[in-house]
Amino acid sequence: MTKQAGCELCVLSSPTVVRNVKFSVILADEANYPGFARVIWNEHVREMSDLADADRLLVNDAVWKVEQAVREVMQPLKVNVASLGNVVPHLHWHIIPRYADDAHFPAPVWASAARETDPAVLEGRRALLPQLKQAIERKFAKQ
Amino acid sequence: MTKQAGCELCVLSSPTVVRNVKFSVILADEANYPGFARVIWNEHVREMSDLADADRLLVNDAVWKVEQAVREVMQPLKVNVASLGNVVPHLHWHIIPRYADDAHFPAPVWASAARETDPAVLEGRRALLPQLKQAIERKFAKQ
Repeated sequence: MTKQAGCELCVLSSPTVVRNVKFSVILADEANYPGFARVIWNEHVREMSDLADADRLLVNDAVWKVEQAVREVMQPLKVNVASLGNVVPHLHWHIIPRYADDAHFPAPVWASAARETDPAVLEGRRALLPQLKQAIERKFAKQ
Repeated sequence: MTKQAGCELCVLSSPTVVRNVKFSVILADEANYPGFARVIWNEHVREMSDLADADRLLVNDAVWKVEQAVREVMQPLKVNVASLGNVVPHLHWHIIPRYADDAHFPAPVWASAARETDPAVLEGRRALLPQLKQAIERKFAKQ
């Protein structure tokens, strides 16, 4: 497996929800965004267009499965999906449930915050995380 | 075709580089980001996971083709790919060439600007747009 010294995604320390030979799915520890998930390619690859065809389709499929699980459990107003990697150029996708009352809506989560979400609402969303974890596991168990 | 009144992507006014029965590819008019491209689904669909399987794969393929063309012609340091749609919930993908000297690098383009790019450098990138347009057309002509 190709690894790059100093790359934080080459030595994934977060607990994974799914980990197979090709990629991992994690729930990000983002206080304002319960349900924020990531699909992380295991090898140190920079861009989607650096992947072999079969691998690229596998990533697309994984992101789609996570999006479905996030929608089913978190019931967001919108899902945001992005692969950026400017800081850590190791292929990974963000899948983010968005709500009208979240910290940045309707701006992207990387913009300046617009508000604070009611802590009780955030707590309610956080309470769904065990269900989300199970829903993601089920999506990949079907493979 | 499903259209929603008031949706700016249901009545696409920008010149398209590619337009077929399913989706359109445009070059966005973003002054600081020459080469910023978008893949826009023609029908008013909200999320990738609302699409039929064949259509979802078609979108993934289109985004990947545009990413390849952007890399080949614009030679960016990194490509950013995202589907957000919080403001306009009509399925569209951003494909953005990023450079160390661009207005926001390494932050996402939706964060606060970090600098102004040298106008001569931007002009040089803008000069590549006719080539980018041709490269995108070629990718889809092969279908």
